[in-house]
Order: sequence, then C-alpha cells, then structure tokens
Amino acid sequence: MKVAEKVFQQINSNSLYKAFGIRIQGADKGKSQSTLEPDPNICWPFPSQPHGGVLFTLMDTTMAWALFSLLEPGYNCATVHLDIQYTIPARKSPFVCLAHVVHKTQNLGFLEAEIRDAVDHLVASGQATFRVVQDPLSLGLVNPVDREKKR
Amino acid sequence: MKVAEKVFQQINSNSLYKAFGIRIQGADKGKSQSTLEPDPNICWPFPSQPHGGVLFTLMDTTMAWALFSLLEPGYNCATVHLDIQYTIPARKSPFVCLAHVVHKTQNLGFLEAEIRDAVDHLVASGQATFRVVQDPLSLGLVNPVDREKKR
Amino acid sequence: MKVAEKVFQQINSNSLYKAFGIRIQGADKGKSQSTLEPDPNICWPFPSQPHGGVLFTLMDTTMAWALFSLLEPGYNCATVHLDIQYTIPARKSPFVCLAHVVHKTQNLGFLEAEIRDAVDHLVASGQATFRVVQDPLSLGLVNPVDREKKR
Amino acid sequence: MKVAEKVFQQINSNSLYKAFGIRIQGADKGKSQSTLEPDPNICWPFPSQPHGGVLFTLMDTTMAWALFSLLEPGYNCATVHLDIQYTIPARKSPFVCLAHVVHKTQNLGFLEAEIRDAVDHLVASGQATFRVVQDPLSLGLVNPVDREKKR
Repeated sequence: MKVAEKVFQQINSNSLYKAFGIRIQGADKGKSQSTLEPDPNICWPFPSQPHGGVLFTLMDTTMAWALFSLLEPGYNCATVHLDIQYTIPARKSPFVCLAHVVHKTQNLGFLEAEIRDAVDHLVASGQATFRVVQDPLSLGLVNPVDREKKR
Repeated sequence: MKVAEKVFQQINSNSLYKAFGIRIQGADKGKSQSTLEPDPNICWPFPSQPHGGVLFTLMDTTMAWALFSLLEPGYNCATVHLDIQYTIPARKSPFVCLAHVVHKTQNLGFLEAEIRDAVDHLVASGQATFRVVQDPLSLGLVNPVDREKKR
Repeated sequence: MKVAEKVFQQINSNSLYKAFGIRIQGADKGKSQSTLEPDPNICWPFPSQPHGGVLFTLMDTTMAWALFSLLEPGYNCATVHLDIQYTIPARKSPFVCLAHVVHKTQNLGFLEAEIRDAVDHLVASGQATFRVVQDPLSLGLVNPVDREKKR
Repeated sequence: MKVAEKVFQQINSNSLYKAFGIRIQGADKGKSQSTLEPDPNICWPFPSQPHGGVLFTLMDTTMAWALFSLLEPGYNCATVHLDIQYTIPARKSPFVCLAHVVHKTQNLGFLEAEIRDAVDHLVASGQATFRVVQDPLSLGLVNPVDREKKR
C-alpha cells in the first residue's frame, strides 16, 4: 500500500533517522525515495563526509520502505543480504537515495538502489534480498495505514 | 603495522563510534577485533536491537582496521564493495566482530568478517574489497604510529 | 543427510560437470568439497585458465551440495544470491573448493566457500544465500538416498 | 572504443561461448548486449534450464565487454567481485543480457547488468567491480581494433 506522507512525518522522527539525518520522502508501488543531510557526529573519519555505514543504512532502510509499500497489513520485512558498491567519496551533501523492488515472491523481495550526491553524481549502488515475514506485533514498522486507522 | 592499544583509546573516542557504541579492541597482521554495545538511539525499529546498518558499520570499520594494520605509513584504505548477510536478529548485546585480510595486492585488499552475539551465535557475515590509496593528509585514519610520533 | 560416495560417482557424470571438469568429492553435515580440472574448452580468454564463470559454477554447485547434505528427503535448494571475489589469476590447476553452511533456517541457507589452486593459494572466496524448497519431483537433485532406495 | 560487429563474429566463435551458447551482440560507450541460447550440455540439473553458473558467466563476460568498450588500446579488465541475484527459474530461452558501466576510475570499473528471458521477465540481476589492467600481451581480449589493424 502507499505509505502516507503524514505517516512519514512520524517515522522520520525516530531516534536512528534523527541521529543520522535520514528522511524518507515517500514509498509507493515498490518505489521509495529518501534524503540524507548527515549529522556532523556520523561524519568520520572525514569531516562533512558521512561514514560508508551511514550511506549503507540510508540504502537499506529506503529499500525496506520500497518493499514495505507492496506488503499487506500484518507483514514486515528484514534484510537477508545487501551488496553495496562505493563509487566516489560522499563529499557533497545532501544525498538522495532511490530504491525499487525488481522482483517479489511470497517470501522474498529483490531490490536495487542508488545514492546520488547534491550534483547528481553516483556515490553508491546496491542490490539486496529481503525476507517477508508475518509480524503482527511489529512495533517500529507496524503497517502505517493500520496505525492511522487506530487513531 | 600493529596499531597500538593506546592509539585505539584515542580512536574509540571519535563521534561516530561513540554515537553507535563501537570499540576497536586491536588490529595486527591483517586481523582486527571490535565490540558493539549499541547506543539506544541506533536501536530502531526494534528496541535494544542495533539497526542492520549499524552492524554493517561495525563490520566495515573493523575490516578497514584489519587492512590498515598491513599498510605502510602514508597509505589509507576505502571500501570498494561490501556484501553483508544477516543470519539471525541481533538481540543479544554485546556483539563482537572479527575481521581478517584474505588477500592483498598493491592496490586492493580482500577481507572477510563476522559478527557474533553475546552467546556466540552468528549474527552477520560479510566479505569486501577495499582500495589502498596514498593519502598523506588523511585526518581521521592517519597512520596512528605517525600520529604518536608527532606528539 | 550424508551423500554417499557412490551417489557422487553418478552425479559426477552429468553433462555440466563433465563439460567443465568438476567433481564433487563429498558432502556431509553442511560441508562439502569438490575439484576442478578445467576442460580446455572452458579456458578462455587465457589458455589453461578456467573462466571466472566456471570458478563461480564450481563454488555455487559445491555450496548447493553442502546445504543439500542438511536437507530432509523431498527438499531441494536454489541460489538466491552469490557474491564472489577473485583474488589471483587461476593459473595453477587443479583447483579445490570447500564450502560450508554457516546458518540455516526453515527456508534459507547461508553459505561460505573458497577455491584454492594447486599450491594452496586463494583464488576466489564467496558467500551466498540459498532458498530451501519442497521439490518432490526434482530430477537432477532428487534426494540421492531416495534414488538409491528406488533401485 | 566501439567494438566492431565484425570483431564479435570472431570473438563469438571461442570455445567457451560455443560450449555455453553465448553470443555478444555489441559493445559501445560502456554498454553491451548479449544472448544465451543454452547448449543442452550446460542445462543441469533441470533440462532446458541453463545452470546458474552459466547465467553468471553470461553476465560477467557481458559486463567485461561493456567496460572494455571504454578502455584505451593496451588495457584489459578482470573481475574483482560480482554479486548476482536469481529472481525466477531460467525456463524460457533465449535469454538476453544487458550490462552497463555505472562509474569508472583509472583502475576500477563499476558495472550493473540484468538477464531477461524470452518473455522479458527478470531472471537475474547483478553488480560488479572490475580492475583495469595494462595488458599489452593479452591474447584473448586483445584490443579488437588493434587486432583488426594487424591483419
């Protein structure tokens, strides 16, 4: 299902995203988009350059939302593997990540993503497999539409 | 070269490691070891479970130190690609990461690593390629022995 | 279950293995071993060096047997992803591949493998995820024990 | 440089491609295309389905040609790592592989590729890093333009 913009306002206030500077902008029909305005604390060892692990986190979580936009209520997803390639130093903030589902089975989702810098140069590309899991009690990734309905 | 324990006391105080709860314990002859006692802020969406991107960061940086322990002064390294597999949920803190260089050429280093939880179960495994770069002005990853000498 | 040596005599006569020069030597308790004496036809573009895709095939199929040794009758497996790293040119035949399962769930198997040349140098390392599938009609990978019983 | 169609007629007659059923159709400006009409010998364990290692070989060699189309005479390339994901069984021949360079430095090339079946369904996706090497004596992958000139 489409994840409502209003929902992301809430999601984007979680402690991980805030510590890094991640914002999910939208997720619908297997595609998602996010931005990273890196917090200075996670720019190490090079000032103003987010650590590669932060770029990975941006990619991984953006992929998860892309897949999540295809799942029925009561289902969640978790990364099985992710392969990331770093092409150039991540010097020019902010960064934009685009992710999309390339194939989905009942139990698995296959995804691709890329991260570009402020001048549209490719900083990282990745592909991943996620497992789809039944998870009615999920706290953080509970179906956002359900969450809205409950209010 | 062997990276002195004293050096890691300084390294471990950087803002990224502190925000995550990462501590490098040692690096010598192409091997390195680290621990993660995850900061609550980076445990999202599941409380007390570090995000997969934090485990990735732990693995990536531990691999870098393993390779770094084989480099001559004036050289640094950067991740080309890293493939990570997640085997079980990361529920039992603290986590230990072991990394080692499996092969090194003049320009590239090939590494493997694994992360285990407090009861020694495999949480993540990974392999990666790093490029070796001449980087005399490197700030954060400057040769720790040089840094010590300069004092 | 342990895959009997007798079974591998039959398996090793399949057209793919013969075209490449692959021989599975054994598989038991999540571990397996194989050899490659490369057929000249698949040594291209460099004479006497098996193509990287042949080394991949060796690794992939050896991993499959390692996982298969843990499966119950009526189950089969298929590669979800495999990441392979090539460390040195594959010049010194024969090659030996060792694979082992690092974790297994109901639906997925996680594996690692390496290929070494005749002087024990690492030629390639890899990690992979396989899905476990119920496949009673599997032709090629039918449970070897069943196949033996039927005779 | 653009690899001439005439050159591929010669390339496509090599023993590896013929044993598999691979044909490179063209390579120019960092992009390349190929087809696989799988030889029955390499369709194992499932009849008429090329082994995953054959699909990998198709992807790897098509990526190499894409990168090669950007190299100067006297340079060659070799795979550093390749991560491949298999989405659906490869049942519907012939298969088409498209590869392109996403970034290139002096020493490294970063590539993406996908393989689709006869009804345009995604069968495999991959990303890879290649090293660029000076290789004036390369036999099999000698600059095709040079080879033409020498005649």
